[in-house]
Amino acid sequence: MNTIIDWRGHVGSRSDKFFKAILFDGEFLLVGLNCLDANQTQSIHAHDGADKFYFVLEGRGQFVVGEEELEAREGMLIVAPAGIPHGVSNIEKGRLSLLVGIAPASR
Amino acid sequence: MNTIIDWRGHVGSRSDKFFKAILFDGEFLLVGLNCLDANQTQSIHAHDGADKFYFVLEGRGQFVVGEEELEAREGMLIVAPAGIPHGVSNIEKGRLSLLVGIAPASR
Repeated sequence: MNTIIDWRGHVGSRSDKFFKAILFDGEFLLVGLNCLDANQTQSIHAHDGADKFYFVLEGRGQFVVGEEELEAREGMLIVAPAGIPHGVSNIEKGRLSLLVGIAPASR
Repeated sequence: MNTIIDWRGHVGSRSDKFFKAILFDGEFLLVGLNCLDANQTQSIHAHDGADKFYFVLEGRGQFVVGEEELEAREGMLIVAPAGIPHGVSNIEKGRLSLLVGIAPASR
């Protein structure tokens, strides 16, 4: 595991579902990269007992967090406290890349 | 606490020490913003029992993590696993803004 990581060197694409890479797999915190191609979606789900954030690295996403539906672009942080359902769709043509963090670490 | 946060609306500056803002204060995860003006430093310290990351939002920093000293610019993730000493200095003229995460949440 590296100490310093440039997310741009870890982007990827899958045709069957959105791409995931692990950037840091700590004892208490997991930091990953999610890349969604056009029209790909991360279904709404919840992590019981774990807080999660997304940070938009590139692109624009349509997020759902709890009762809220919101659009977020590069530089925006989206937080889903433990137990709150959340998901995201890429509604643009370009790639949507997200830094994601989950604590406690879980996949 | 908002679900969606644009860090650009939370930057700040202090003359006596670097600026800190809390963006998300969860049960398991704290996400904050640190802004270091030119020549400001976050002294080397360690969080026992908590993983930490920095993500460089703007500027360029000189980081220390354990035995490593490394320079990082916008878009780079720096990770300090629990117990590993870490710190950062702004060696440039412009502001250094960092998204920081600590899990379990602690200040």
